[in-house]
Amino acid sequence: MSNLAENQIKTDSLMTKSQFEQRLRDIGAQRYHDNCKFHHLLHSGKLNKGQVQAWAINRYYYQINISIKDSALMSRIKDPSLRRIWIKRILDHDGRKGDEGGIERWYKLTDGLNLDREYIKSTNGVLPATKFAVDAYVNFVKEKSLLEGVTSSLTELFAPKIHKERIVGMLENYDFINDITMAYFKKRVDQATDDADFVLDYALKNAKTREEQESVCSALKFKTDVLWVMQDALYHSYINGHIPPGAFLPEDFDDRYIED
Amino acid sequence: MSNLAENQIKTDSLMTKSQFEQRLRDIGAQRYHDNCKFHHLLHSGKLNKGQVQAWAINRYYYQINISIKDSALMSRIKDPSLRRIWIKRILDHDGRKGDEGGIERWYKLTDGLNLDREYIKSTNGVLPATKFAVDAYVNFVKEKSLLEGVTSSLTELFAPKIHKERIVGMLENYDFINDITMAYFKKRVDQATDDADFVLDYALKNAKTREEQESVCSALKFKTDVLWVMQDALYHSYINGHIPPGAFLPEDFDDRYIED
Repeated sequence: MSNLAENQIKTDSLMTKSQFEQRLRDIGAQRYHDNCKFHHLLHSGKLNKGQVQAWAINRYYYQINISIKDSALMSRIKDPSLRRIWIKRILDHDGRKGDEGGIERWYKLTDGLNLDREYIKSTNGVLPATKFAVDAYVNFVKEKSLLEGVTSSLTELFAPKIHKERIVGMLENYDFINDITMAYFKKRVDQATDDADFVLDYALKNAKTREEQESVCSALKFKTDVLWVMQDALYHSYINGHIPPGAFLPEDFDDRYIED
Repeated sequence: MSNLAENQIKTDSLMTKSQFEQRLRDIGAQRYHDNCKFHHLLHSGKLNKGQVQAWAINRYYYQINISIKDSALMSRIKDPSLRRIWIKRILDHDGRKGDEGGIERWYKLTDGLNLDREYIKSTNGVLPATKFAVDAYVNFVKEKSLLEGVTSSLTELFAPKIHKERIVGMLENYDFINDITMAYFKKRVDQATDDADFVLDYALKNAKTREEQESVCSALKFKTDVLWVMQDALYHSYINGHIPPGAFLPEDFDDRYIED
């Protein structure tokens, strides 16, 4: 799909907004982490509790770095009106009056999975690959152009679908998952939709040369790599059983669950 | 082994030099990437040519970033006599009069594996996990203390053994490997031994508090994570066959080789 689109568009001329949007959607279709097998196992109830715990522990490292990433990005935004919009993301995760925020809701999930909060907060059990990938994301928004930093969030275009699948699939398939533990994702469906609409519009308006359009495509690809690496590391460690030294070792870790 | 050593040493008092050295050697014994299955497959002739190519392509990304890492580290060294010693590492990789250098020797390997040099130099086929891990290493020496930056090289203590195994094993087991393609590793056996002796001595002399000793242990652990993540990503992608979008796809890639 993407190859076809690329072939149809001359490589040196500005894409129309509709061609550009299609390129971005093609990148998502090919590279978004809903293509990873781990998600299908997660949503269809094929994981044991220890594997779901490993997912929640690793994803936590991503969650707590989102506001750090967004703060770094805001420190580079000169336009107060853009900062005023972007700050919503930090408030969504860190909380505001009347809303505990996404990080607190994540603890509902880890609590529900019987994980010790101090252990979660220590991030000691997080896979090194997860840390490297998430840290790369934080560094990306520090080092790349503002356009690239903003549009690396374009993965949100593809998030609501996976969140909806996750809510339905996990509630149905795991007896240790309920409405309270899934609160994070229920809230994110609407938040991510609003955020994604804004960023797509921003990309279409602010990428004014082909080079800038390509840089947006690269930023989106980079971000899909971050999410993909996290999934691959979980799969290799907790499905195929190659848990690296120092990483979370589930209580119910058992060779019977290992495919390899 | 490490747990035992840790239990024997009070957590708040300075370790003796010999206890400290043993802790470092225990970390290597547990966490150095010669524990990864990928290496055993590589050395024992169990990989096909495409899998060896994938290893050489990914490891190339590490090779070209070593001098960048060492330059970043040197930019933080205030003592000219330490810079004078450290610069040898950059010359070893980039070359000097009468010595083409390690990066050029790496091309001998990739040439011998029939990989196009322009493709290698583009780093396009490198796994995202490799890039995140290596970039994390470069950032580590920029952001951490000088003591941690220097001692993250302590993995060299464990390198000569794996290099020797690799040279013998690969020459014996692959008809596409010969003395010319293995030139990089032949040279590294002596270089890494000299470098490691210096860094171990530096660690023993310059870590003067228990906190500093612990920071050196953490730096070594961090570096073992970098190398381990690279091996795990190769294994997941090219042994178990989960090659991510955009990464190197071997010509002879064939489901028959896949364990999964």
